[in-house]
Amino acid sequence: MSTSRSFDEWKRSAQEKFDRKTKPLGSLGHLEELAARLAAIQQTLSPTVHRKRLNVYAASHGIVAEGVSAYPAEVTAQMVLNFLNGGAAINVLARHGSIELNIVNVGVDRDLTNVAFPNFSNQPIQRGTRNFLREQAMSLGELQRAMNIGREHTQAAKESGVELLGIGEMGIGNTTSAAALFSALLGVSAEESVGRGTGLDDAGVQRKARVVHQAVTWHRATCRSAEEWMQAVGGFEIAAMCGSILEAHRLRLPIVVDGFVATAAAAVAFAIDPSSKQTCFFAHSSAEKAHALVLKRLNVTPILALEMRLGEGTGAALAMHILDAAARLLCEMATFESAGVSESPQT
Amino acid sequence: MSTSRSFDEWKRSAQEKFDRKTKPLGSLGHLEELAARLAAIQQTLSPTVHRKRLNVYAASHGIVAEGVSAYPAEVTAQMVLNFLNGGAAINVLARHGSIELNIVNVGVDRDLTNVAFPNFSNQPIQRGTRNFLREQAMSLGELQRAMNIGREHTQAAKESGVELLGIGEMGIGNTTSAAALFSALLGVSAEESVGRGTGLDDAGVQRKARVVHQAVTWHRATCRSAEEWMQAVGGFEIAAMCGSILEAHRLRLPIVVDGFVATAAAAVAFAIDPSSKQTCFFAHSSAEKAHALVLKRLNVTPILALEMRLGEGTGAALAMHILDAAARLLCEMATFESAGVSESPQT
Repeated sequence: MSTSRSFDEWKRSAQEKFDRKTKPLGSLGHLEELAARLAAIQQTLSPTVHRKRLNVYAASHGIVAEGVSAYPAEVTAQMVLNFLNGGAAINVLARHGSIELNIVNVGVDRDLTNVAFPNFSNQPIQRGTRNFLREQAMSLGELQRAMNIGREHTQAAKESGVELLGIGEMGIGNTTSAAALFSALLGVSAEESVGRGTGLDDAGVQRKARVVHQAVTWHRATCRSAEEWMQAVGGFEIAAMCGSILEAHRLRLPIVVDGFVATAAAAVAFAIDPSSKQTCFFAHSSAEKAHALVLKRLNVTPILALEMRLGEGTGAALAMHILDAAARLLCEMATFESAGVSESPQT
Repeated sequence: MSTSRSFDEWKRSAQEKFDRKTKPLGSLGHLEELAARLAAIQQTLSPTVHRKRLNVYAASHGIVAEGVSAYPAEVTAQMVLNFLNGGAAINVLARHGSIELNIVNVGVDRDLTNVAFPNFSNQPIQRGTRNFLREQAMSLGELQRAMNIGREHTQAAKESGVELLGIGEMGIGNTTSAAALFSALLGVSAEESVGRGTGLDDAGVQRKARVVHQAVTWHRATCRSAEEWMQAVGGFEIAAMCGSILEAHRLRLPIVVDGFVATAAAAVAFAIDPSSKQTCFFAHSSAEKAHALVLKRLNVTPILALEMRLGEGTGAALAMHILDAAARLLCEMATFESAGVSESPQT
């Protein structure tokens, strides 16, 4: 088949294939749309996403100095070690879903030079971003390095035969960065964009909203593009995920965006290259307050809604099983003709 | 540990175990409740649902004579053969989810005596129910036989070491039976309770609503219990699933209820034994119009919402992966103490 077919033509052909399967028309609901999109991304009517990998990017955030998180900043590094020892939620879900798990340190505030694990990449840009209420979170060079790290891990996944990539993150303070990016890019107010993160109380949420409001107001004087906003208020792990999305799109590698913070990376990626949205699947609508709203603003439909709000790629890990199911249904189901099943007289 | 702990005490202990895991309190959302319920059903703080089985019950329906389905009645038998040949949606999803799949003929309108497959049980009660607009769908003896078949397959699952059971169905016409049961038992009007089923047009939906309204109005004169309603307007596969739910509860075997029709079996089971609700998980909110409403009336929360409306146990198969994930998280995650991760000062 010609690869000059458009994305929408591939989707339509995949839907036509689905319509010959032994089931009422449309009765697999969202699974049909998911499979058709996988077909269009991979440019085949028999998409496969058997081999799955999840890259979790970790970094520290200078904004925690403003008291925006319920957990102490050192938890970021502690959780990286927990990932490597296999005890975190994402380890359990990756094992359960047969998903390869890689942890990438793009800027945790601890020296991890001597930490050696086969699935760990130690590529710190700095020991955390700077406090974006007082200065830019990162330099332009740092932004580019973070995005390139995401691109490189995406290329590596593609080269090693990965068919479905997930992205997740760890970084105490990063829901504040994400909220600032949504406020800057999607016209969501600071009050709407902030939530409890890992578990702030009401006073903490108010403080966080003030920080986001002040920072976005201040940086608005100089920021003119989504990249500039990423540099001003983003995080190293958010920038890496953004690079990963852009590269996955270039490589036609389907990518699953995890939760609230990963969605901020997607919002920046879509501003840089709107067509990259074609290649993204949104794992779930999380319990972080603004997530449902920003998914709606981005005009995307999440796969799951389990009130999770943990990050780490946990939503992506569960959604990957659903995506794999969708692809397998398109590939493996019998047709009315092959199974000798009568079609509806109405169709 | 003593098994004299109550269901709620087990749930509370499981939640306390979850609260020591390396994650913000409550951040696994519905997964925490699912795992706590699995713990309470199995009476252990380390629930396991590795071994999964799905029983699909198939039967024909006399009510199809009233023109209530978009598909011809012979599709029920054709789809049974499709299940046995491995080409239906549920075959794909069962393979993908490592779920044992059994097909049980409780009353398909075709002689399947010579059909021999290791995962097929040929136990027809009749070649379909009678037309419940004109007479009772089944006799009391037939109802009891159908419920016993469901009970027996549930006992067999438990005895062979199955840890999580799913129930699904195939039966052209059975959304009409399900709608009649909801209308009779949950105080939902006929208009609210009917939907498009496999794909009725507007005129078909109106006809179906009239059939349900007339049948429920007529049978109300004689029906005094949920069992009597099952006998009057139910189906053999619905009765078998109802027996399965009651037996699963007795055996403390967690059971996943698939979609609209399986939910009708649950509604009858809950009327017979309200405590059986403890043992049921509702796989998904389907696209069949009344499903979300009846789940709300039953005060249960579905796991997925993917706009599926296929039956066969397809929603249950996907939800089983989520339930297994929930149990594994409770069993396998590290604690703050064991992983050396700092807790929130707020907790």
